[in-house]
Amino acid sequence: MNKEQGIEILEDSIGKLSRAKSGLYGRDFLLTWEKSESDLRTVLDVARILKEMRSANISPKVFDSGLAISNFRDNSTRTRFSFASASNLLGLAVQDLDEQKSQIAHGETVRETANMISFMSDFIGIRDDIFLGEGNKYMREVGSALDEGFEKGVLPVRPGIINLQCDMDHPTQSLADLMHLSTLYGSPDKLKGKKLVMSWAYSPSYGKPLSVPQGIISLMSRFGMNIELAFPEGYNLIPEIVAAAEKNARLSGGSLSISHSMEEAMKDADIVYPKSWAPFHIMQQRTELLKKSDMAGLKELEKACLASNAGFKGWEYDSAKKKLTRNGDALYMHCLPADISGVSCERGEVSAEEFERHRIPTYKEAGYKPYIIAAMMLTNRFENPGEVLADIIKRNRKRVGIN
Amino acid sequence: MNKEQGIEILEDSIGKLSRAKSGLYGRDFLLTWEKSESDLRTVLDVARILKEMRSANISPKVFDSGLAISNFRDNSTRTRFSFASASNLLGLAVQDLDEQKSQIAHGETVRETANMISFMSDFIGIRDDIFLGEGNKYMREVGSALDEGFEKGVLPVRPGIINLQCDMDHPTQSLADLMHLSTLYGSPDKLKGKKLVMSWAYSPSYGKPLSVPQGIISLMSRFGMNIELAFPEGYNLIPEIVAAAEKNARLSGGSLSISHSMEEAMKDADIVYPKSWAPFHIMQQRTELLKKSDMAGLKELEKACLASNAGFKGWEYDSAKKKLTRNGDALYMHCLPADISGVSCERGEVSAEEFERHRIPTYKEAGYKPYIIAAMMLTNRFENPGEVLADIIKRNRKRVGIN
Amino acid sequence: MNKEQGIEILEDSIGKLSRAKSGLYGRDFLLTWEKSESDLRTVLDVARILKEMRSANISPKVFDSGLAISNFRDNSTRTRFSFASASNLLGLAVQDLDEQKSQIAHGETVRETANMISFMSDFIGIRDDIFLGEGNKYMREVGSALDEGFEKGVLPVRPGIINLQCDMDHPTQSLADLMHLSTLYGSPDKLKGKKLVMSWAYSPSYGKPLSVPQGIISLMSRFGMNIELAFPEGYNLIPEIVAAAEKNARLSGGSLSISHSMEEAMKDADIVYPKSWAPFHIMQQRTELLKKSDMAGLKELEKACLASNAGFKGWEYDSAKKKLTRNGDALYMHCLPADISGVSCERGEVSAEEFERHRIPTYKEAGYKPYIIAAMMLTNRFENPGEVLADIIKRNRKRVGIN
Repeated sequence: MNKEQGIEILEDSIGKLSRAKSGLYGRDFLLTWEKSESDLRTVLDVARILKEMRSANISPKVFDSGLAISNFRDNSTRTRFSFASASNLLGLAVQDLDEQKSQIAHGETVRETANMISFMSDFIGIRDDIFLGEGNKYMREVGSALDEGFEKGVLPVRPGIINLQCDMDHPTQSLADLMHLSTLYGSPDKLKGKKLVMSWAYSPSYGKPLSVPQGIISLMSRFGMNIELAFPEGYNLIPEIVAAAEKNARLSGGSLSISHSMEEAMKDADIVYPKSWAPFHIMQQRTELLKKSDMAGLKELEKACLASNAGFKGWEYDSAKKKLTRNGDALYMHCLPADISGVSCERGEVSAEEFERHRIPTYKEAGYKPYIIAAMMLTNRFENPGEVLADIIKRNRKRVGIN
Repeated sequence: MNKEQGIEILEDSIGKLSRAKSGLYGRDFLLTWEKSESDLRTVLDVARILKEMRSANISPKVFDSGLAISNFRDNSTRTRFSFASASNLLGLAVQDLDEQKSQIAHGETVRETANMISFMSDFIGIRDDIFLGEGNKYMREVGSALDEGFEKGVLPVRPGIINLQCDMDHPTQSLADLMHLSTLYGSPDKLKGKKLVMSWAYSPSYGKPLSVPQGIISLMSRFGMNIELAFPEGYNLIPEIVAAAEKNARLSGGSLSISHSMEEAMKDADIVYPKSWAPFHIMQQRTELLKKSDMAGLKELEKACLASNAGFKGWEYDSAKKKLTRNGDALYMHCLPADISGVSCERGEVSAEEFERHRIPTYKEAGYKPYIIAAMMLTNRFENPGEVLADIIKRNRKRVGIN
Repeated sequence: MNKEQGIEILEDSIGKLSRAKSGLYGRDFLLTWEKSESDLRTVLDVARILKEMRSANISPKVFDSGLAISNFRDNSTRTRFSFASASNLLGLAVQDLDEQKSQIAHGETVRETANMISFMSDFIGIRDDIFLGEGNKYMREVGSALDEGFEKGVLPVRPGIINLQCDMDHPTQSLADLMHLSTLYGSPDKLKGKKLVMSWAYSPSYGKPLSVPQGIISLMSRFGMNIELAFPEGYNLIPEIVAAAEKNARLSGGSLSISHSMEEAMKDADIVYPKSWAPFHIMQQRTELLKKSDMAGLKELEKACLASNAGFKGWEYDSAKKKLTRNGDALYMHCLPADISGVSCERGEVSAEEFERHRIPTYKEAGYKPYIIAAMMLTNRFENPGEVLADIIKRNRKRVGIN
């Protein structure tokens, strides 16, 4: 494909973008289930167009200056770099809010700090996934402080908030995953009727967040997929989120069922997502203990939890399980890093053989995240993303080269 | 106000800027009392114009590349983000000098490091407020190393130094405060005759720097204000700085008086700035102990000092004290974060009720700092800021949008 | 020199740049001895032109967005700021890969992380100089992971790797040093026949990397210099690298000899580079102990090594030694920071008097590094650097000012 053809295809894609005012404009991106299906499709489309632009060496810079603040309350490499990449692509500089250096906390201080860092900020990306019932709440506290600051003339612009993983959802991950599926199958419409298994898998660690499995079942259930959620008894997700996903599935013409056998679940699966998580009730206890800084209690809980996990070492995705899937050839997905048996741990979520077979596709899966974040930013800031993208093509500025 | 009107007002403001060569060009910004009144007004004017430009979505970027180095020797959120915002607005990338990773120190190493980090730097922002007699001295050491490097052909440009708080002054804070007052009253000229109370206030911590009260009395005394400096006996500021502020006040047609009762001081105040600080003689002892790393001595000093503080819990700004001010309605100022009774501590500088009443204005007060820093940068680098600002308007580049 | 003359000289320099496809295009810069002499000269020429452009206030920005990742596995100030400066000059934003926050490691994880951080990266700069036999190997592991990612469609661009110091070489340092010499003597050709002494010097620390002396003898030996490598018996460098440098010297019409007396070596030296390093066999032992985390063993090795060092306190470059050099006036070089007797330590690599005499030239020496790195980036990304530089002149965008 030469450059002219590339640009024609891009123009065509942009032409198809709805000119209707999107519901994304000026809104935080906190949970996929707060967004309409049409808005989710817009994010996917804009992300795809931005990805194609970058491949065609067209710079989509739309900010001449401005800060994108990252507030990571938990470790991150993938999402940190994705956020930095997206910000940079659009012209924003990343500024880390390091809470150890700045003593931000809940309550009074959140309200104040949110404003203090935002005088020239366009976005705040937040990861807060450790405390159940806290992460998403914190994002909304920040949001309402920003609302007040903007309304009362403190802030010249209301910065948009992007959820980079909370206790409930991980929308930049689940949308990158959906973009991966849409690319492989041709479009989100082609996912209808496909069987996706979101399965718990064994890991020698404990306390892994629930946001990925919750995010996956909540989002994929909106596109008519038949979802099977499999986990050992007791390893439940947040009940309200599962219930909502069930409702989504019914409404979109798909289904959501729950089972407690990895083998059973894998039968005829088109797509499998084997990933460890901590049981909901354990996360609740952990949150209480963390709040009380009860270190002895935490130690004990970890011990009990790892002992419980150890009873489910069979929940490893391996070649035998793969054979059970549709044509013995299901698509394997993971948010990475995976616990790989014999590689990153003795026994883990996936056998070395199976992981290696699907390694490159999982890298591609991860590669959509920067574009998803950039699309969230662009649709938050511009009422008519289609027009902006068309203007970017017309401007035709090179990302690398002499402009 | 539509965009055209906004630009007309901007052009008018720029037209009024003196075309005379400012004393700011090529000079470090270390202490407000080293700057002429006319230069201080230029900083205020440029800051205001930059703020209006940003609101009008006009990008004032004047650097296509270049680094702004931040060297924080003490914690900071507000000033850190303000410095990052100002740098970014003008087109500079922030690079932190993390001394833990780089082993910079006083003496030989300062001279060398100052040059090593400056080959492509345009500004160095420094916060060094912990050691009395050291912070400002350190900035001058860095400055003279840069002078030598530039004169001898090591550096292509002499980076400007911006004092982001030292042991003597906090010029980006006091000028942001002055900009707040000028905005509220209409212009710096309208401050003449107004009574400003810079009052010590109780805090359950010790060792708070003297630079804010010193900066406030030194700067505000130059605009004909009647300043009352109130503190419990023994809680003196650096004597030379108070003496200089008294002289400023006399010369500008205002006054500076000292009292030892918060209630007395508040009478008929137009503006109140209740804020805790450590007594000068305690800071001197603390500096000696810190230099000797005498941890036991420091512990003892802290204990004695907190015990002494505890005798002055009545120095809290509350509704009763507010009633004493002009029409019971003085403007409340604070550099934030404030110690708020019942919120951030049991008993503090200000009652929760009074703080809440003035909370949004204190946020606005803080919001001027990025523009003050940007104005310091612009006037340091350009001989005729008025011309540059006029050219920015002519260029009319959008901050957000397709250029 | 006025601006027009400056630009004419620049155009002339650019005109002389070879239009032939360079071997630098699309290749990592890991070891100078993997590069042809012609390619090394191209790096020097491009670096010089970029330096002149910046002095003439011409912005050579060629990236509208893109990340330059820095991965420092050891402390750094000079190289960190040089990398940041170079990236910023060309339009890239620096993103630190902080391994403490991201748990990168050797093996599986390197392969994955290399891809995860590179979706929008143009360069990765790596410092990994602590483990003998590991640093350069790690860079190649990263490189082959990036090759795979690019070939298999994970990455839109293959990021270039720049060695910011490994166990074998320190190419950005040695090329900055060569640029310093070329500037002082007029061109690399003028170095032919000059005597350069790379001499061990005493330091009260141990474990200093071998990469600087190895880098210097490997690079300078390619330009017909007569190199004398002097060190106390037992303080050998990696034998294969010394052997290769000897061969270089023969081929380029120079020589490389080894001696064990600082005084002897200094005789008639044109250029001296007195710098401490740890003996090769000690570094090997240290690497083994570090791998085993044998803290007691490391402590013992350090003690033994410092005791051994202490026998060579006479290896200090002082006025007496300088008198032995050509006309008593050799050029002194150092990568900085130097261990200066009576300044940074009791007894060190160089006397205070001699260091002070050559201090400013060593600062200039260091000042070439940002341009060397920028030249590595530009020649990696553009097949015909001469054309790009000519286009930059034609575009004539100001670095500081209104464009």
